[in-house]
Amino acid sequence: MSLFSLPLFVQDTAAVEGDMGMLWMLISGILVFLMQAGFTLVESGMTRSKNVVNIAMKNVLDIAVGSLVFWFIGYSLMYGESASGWIGWSGFMFNQGPADLFFQTVFCATAATIVSGAIAGRTKYSTYIIFSVVLTAIIYPIAGGWEWNGGWLNDTEGIMPAEFIDFAGSSVVHAVGGWAAIVAAALVGPRLGKYTAEGKAVSIPGHNKLLAALGVFILWFGWFGFNGGSQLAWGGDDATGASMVVLVTNLAAAAGAVGALFLSWIKYKKPNLDMTLNGALAGLVSITAGCGNMSEGGAIIAGFIGGLIVVFSMEFVEQKLKIDDAVGAFSVHAVAGAWGTLVIGLWGIDGDTGIGLLNGGGANQFLAQLIGTLAYAIWAVVTSFIFLTILKKTVGLRVSEKVEIEGLDLSEHGALAYPGKRQREIEE
Amino acid sequence: MSLFSLPLFVQDTAAVEGDMGMLWMLISGILVFLMQAGFTLVESGMTRSKNVVNIAMKNVLDIAVGSLVFWFIGYSLMYGESASGWIGWSGFMFNQGPADLFFQTVFCATAATIVSGAIAGRTKYSTYIIFSVVLTAIIYPIAGGWEWNGGWLNDTEGIMPAEFIDFAGSSVVHAVGGWAAIVAAALVGPRLGKYTAEGKAVSIPGHNKLLAALGVFILWFGWFGFNGGSQLAWGGDDATGASMVVLVTNLAAAAGAVGALFLSWIKYKKPNLDMTLNGALAGLVSITAGCGNMSEGGAIIAGFIGGLIVVFSMEFVEQKLKIDDAVGAFSVHAVAGAWGTLVIGLWGIDGDTGIGLLNGGGANQFLAQLIGTLAYAIWAVVTSFIFLTILKKTVGLRVSEKVEIEGLDLSEHGALAYPGKRQREIEE
Amino acid sequence: MSLFSLPLFVQDTAAVEGDMGMLWMLISGILVFLMQAGFTLVESGMTRSKNVVNIAMKNVLDIAVGSLVFWFIGYSLMYGESASGWIGWSGFMFNQGPADLFFQTVFCATAATIVSGAIAGRTKYSTYIIFSVVLTAIIYPIAGGWEWNGGWLNDTEGIMPAEFIDFAGSSVVHAVGGWAAIVAAALVGPRLGKYTAEGKAVSIPGHNKLLAALGVFILWFGWFGFNGGSQLAWGGDDATGASMVVLVTNLAAAAGAVGALFLSWIKYKKPNLDMTLNGALAGLVSITAGCGNMSEGGAIIAGFIGGLIVVFSMEFVEQKLKIDDAVGAFSVHAVAGAWGTLVIGLWGIDGDTGIGLLNGGGANQFLAQLIGTLAYAIWAVVTSFIFLTILKKTVGLRVSEKVEIEGLDLSEHGALAYPGKRQREIEE
Repeated sequence: MSLFSLPLFVQDTAAVEGDMGMLWMLISGILVFLMQAGFTLVESGMTRSKNVVNIAMKNVLDIAVGSLVFWFIGYSLMYGESASGWIGWSGFMFNQGPADLFFQTVFCATAATIVSGAIAGRTKYSTYIIFSVVLTAIIYPIAGGWEWNGGWLNDTEGIMPAEFIDFAGSSVVHAVGGWAAIVAAALVGPRLGKYTAEGKAVSIPGHNKLLAALGVFILWFGWFGFNGGSQLAWGGDDATGASMVVLVTNLAAAAGAVGALFLSWIKYKKPNLDMTLNGALAGLVSITAGCGNMSEGGAIIAGFIGGLIVVFSMEFVEQKLKIDDAVGAFSVHAVAGAWGTLVIGLWGIDGDTGIGLLNGGGANQFLAQLIGTLAYAIWAVVTSFIFLTILKKTVGLRVSEKVEIEGLDLSEHGALAYPGKRQREIEE
Repeated sequence: MSLFSLPLFVQDTAAVEGDMGMLWMLISGILVFLMQAGFTLVESGMTRSKNVVNIAMKNVLDIAVGSLVFWFIGYSLMYGESASGWIGWSGFMFNQGPADLFFQTVFCATAATIVSGAIAGRTKYSTYIIFSVVLTAIIYPIAGGWEWNGGWLNDTEGIMPAEFIDFAGSSVVHAVGGWAAIVAAALVGPRLGKYTAEGKAVSIPGHNKLLAALGVFILWFGWFGFNGGSQLAWGGDDATGASMVVLVTNLAAAAGAVGALFLSWIKYKKPNLDMTLNGALAGLVSITAGCGNMSEGGAIIAGFIGGLIVVFSMEFVEQKLKIDDAVGAFSVHAVAGAWGTLVIGLWGIDGDTGIGLLNGGGANQFLAQLIGTLAYAIWAVVTSFIFLTILKKTVGLRVSEKVEIEGLDLSEHGALAYPGKRQREIEE
Repeated sequence: MSLFSLPLFVQDTAAVEGDMGMLWMLISGILVFLMQAGFTLVESGMTRSKNVVNIAMKNVLDIAVGSLVFWFIGYSLMYGESASGWIGWSGFMFNQGPADLFFQTVFCATAATIVSGAIAGRTKYSTYIIFSVVLTAIIYPIAGGWEWNGGWLNDTEGIMPAEFIDFAGSSVVHAVGGWAAIVAAALVGPRLGKYTAEGKAVSIPGHNKLLAALGVFILWFGWFGFNGGSQLAWGGDDATGASMVVLVTNLAAAAGAVGALFLSWIKYKKPNLDMTLNGALAGLVSITAGCGNMSEGGAIIAGFIGGLIVVFSMEFVEQKLKIDDAVGAFSVHAVAGAWGTLVIGLWGIDGDTGIGLLNGGGANQFLAQLIGTLAYAIWAVVTSFIFLTILKKTVGLRVSEKVEIEGLDLSEHGALAYPGKRQREIEE
């Protein structure tokens, strides 16, 4: 074929678009990586100073062990060949492209790290390592393949009334992490002093709200890669599409922050920073599934409601369920994650066409979203419960009372985060 | 037309260059977003620990409310159709491309956030919200369109002797924010204890200089997107052009830091960190207008002088004007911003041709820069003064003396940034 | 030539690939820039609070002065025309492309900043400035050209048995910085109280481990640009290649963290955060030379061993050599740097072909790596020793005992990092 013939020409542009897509995916993955720093700061800042080293150790471990384990086995289970649509397999150390493997790796580490915050301050480090391995090697990858490897949730020949949509992982990543977090928090039990003898919840304020705020900014920043990079391509419609994803991600985060800010102002008489920060995160989670299927206005409303939900949910978990989720991980990731998944069935769009219950799309999409949401919730709860119960019965989940009072930093890691304040910390 | 004919061919490359431009603009916007974190750290670190939560709340609000308001109305006023060249209009929720809207949104939030630092420690939160809305919805967008929407400052048929140049916003963003900041600081009055009965200025040291330094690094980092992304394109000359923008931006920042470092060493006998940090920021502001029209050497001199100016300006504002600008926002953003705008008229270049007074370009460009600089200063001062005076007469600008002494964190937000230090803070 | 002829066509794609390469290099450079913030946090967090301002001042200076000096002279010495292959020269203010100059500038600043941490807490600021200038103007650029300007290390016509490989600078950047650091630490002497009268090392814990952890995350993040950007191109094989670089960089860092974590657990009975963080950094340094010549498995083993090495090396330096390297800069950058350079000669690959001793490549590559490793070590030790000895005999390296006890912040810079804690710091 002559060099001047059409195919080469088209191939040429396709190659360039492929290269641009790889560039965007790689840069997005790099942004997502930094979310580990954001999680570390949010979790540390919102909890007590005597457990800071432990939190840093958990987050470094999540990305370190997660990177190795996901490369070794997780990616195969998630993106390997899958006849059934329920579980993939392509041998160990599977790699269908380094940019994709890297991008998926940092996603996986995110799911793991969500658990860390909920169980801060009383969990054994060795046990946490094992659970982190299980989550990144098995729980997350298998479930992820259901949606992102063309699994059963996309199979309208089967039980699905429509293809399940979860663009960047409101359910696949965040709800899975969030449900695992609440199961872990329930099984490990509340921190000493969190509930009075009468069962009244006691507020345990975080030790550094400035770093918590910095953490949220870093998470918000990384989320542009998390959602935008999930376009997995760049060029032509994908360039505009990924840009639109970033735009609506920002709008939803903004609306979530505003929603939580004003709700906290009304409920507690003062605009509350913790709530505002969690509202921004909830806004981000709320748009993560639908960021490719939402108008700007739809994203704002989704995020705003996400910001309201998180305030009520945190109160409910703390005061009614009496589960001590130290940073509100369940409310931010699982509750807002479920909401973000379902909202596509309410006012999602596909291009210019409404696909939701409320914008003329009928009930199929909503039903599909409901099935997916439930499937991820059930999977995460059941598998986490099984593995954590085994761990509880064997190595144990919780440190001793003495260790907890002294702080995990000294006991588990032999070092204080702020040694100059050693004495003063003990007084606190 | 045959597929082999020229137009498709050229169109093809143009499409790819368009996609690359969008990629660069989107990534730049993401970098600019992180500047909110930088501002939060600089403002918090350079002020007292009892107002940290308040500063974080202001900065989260700036990006959250700013994103919503600028999408809803601001972008229309700035980039909508404008017959007069004075004000745009294209209806609410105008969007001429998601990457551009996102990029412009984070710019807008930057302008708003400049005000926050200047009035730290004594301003009502509710009042700040209203002013932030006014700034992002009206003050910044209208003025921005004069330059970046092909407005009257580019119209050489009118009064302009040459097209006004402000590549990335020394005047459009920074000076507008900086002038609003000084008006706000003057109207709200100095912090209690800032001036003795005899009118002598008292130094109120910031509570965490390490985080202030981190904030400056983050701002510097984000500024590469701020200036570089303002190329609004990538490919061919634009690729080299945007890279050159990033290069000279870094050189000017470096020179600003060096200038302020050595000047502080000479003036105060010791190399001063606060000054060095503000010098770096002043260097960045000084090159923001001219980063597309400056040689490497020209950028270094511009930044170096900016670093010197900021030291003198901060002293002048504090000791002569006796206005309590808590972080030097006016000196960094408005004074260096004016300098950065004017310097193009002194030794700016257009390609290889000098366009300044001192490099053979004649007086026209300098005159144009002077007109633009004055226009932005007057607009920002007048509109800020009007709105803030209305707010002062109605809702009030300032918290009570009791609240100020206790700190805004406890009184306005019901939480301390570092609760473990509660008692110790009160002692300070 | 007709527009439809081949050359234009090919030229067209080449131009687009050139533009994409410039984009990747520029973004990578921006990521590398942020490493300055990471270094500042790691160095500050791992040392005492009374020297934080000094560390921030050193790091700001490194990038500020380094940017100016490297632009003015360093880049010429490194990338200018070089007949001999030993030293380049193309006149002052040489610029063969702004993206490249920017990228190389931030690399240079990295080399300089490595020294800063090792000599924390007792070095004169004015002396540090001079040495930083020497390093960025002369020591680093000359040595860098040997490898990256097609210098003698690539000349197999000369003494080299194979072309020396150092993709992103395990030796060129990190080992040069690390060797200069240990020479400086030895010449300036240990901090007061670091060794007892009997010569026993006393642990001086860092004052903020959370910020140290944040710093490591930022460094890891920036390293993706450091290594990935060293591809210096994007498009076709380069796109996949650079993505692979980022992937193996992450895997090696992960393995380094895991290695150090478990080794510290075994050695000291508790999983240690400082070691884990330094292990991650050592993993990163260990893959920096070989990131373009390493399989995923090879990278993991290289990083893992790097993480082990750093633990032993830090102990050896502190307890056997009795050199007070305050943050382990020598072990992380020079020892892991040498290891990362040599490992290519053990199990490096070139495409699918093994080039190492252990994977069938013979001894030539290992020999070449050994020559390069030694050349950089010798060069850095000799030049640092000469310049620092001159400085010691003239301006002096070390502050007075009184200044050191009081802390460099107050004495050298007239300001405390956390002034609210002034009194408490003195007690500590």
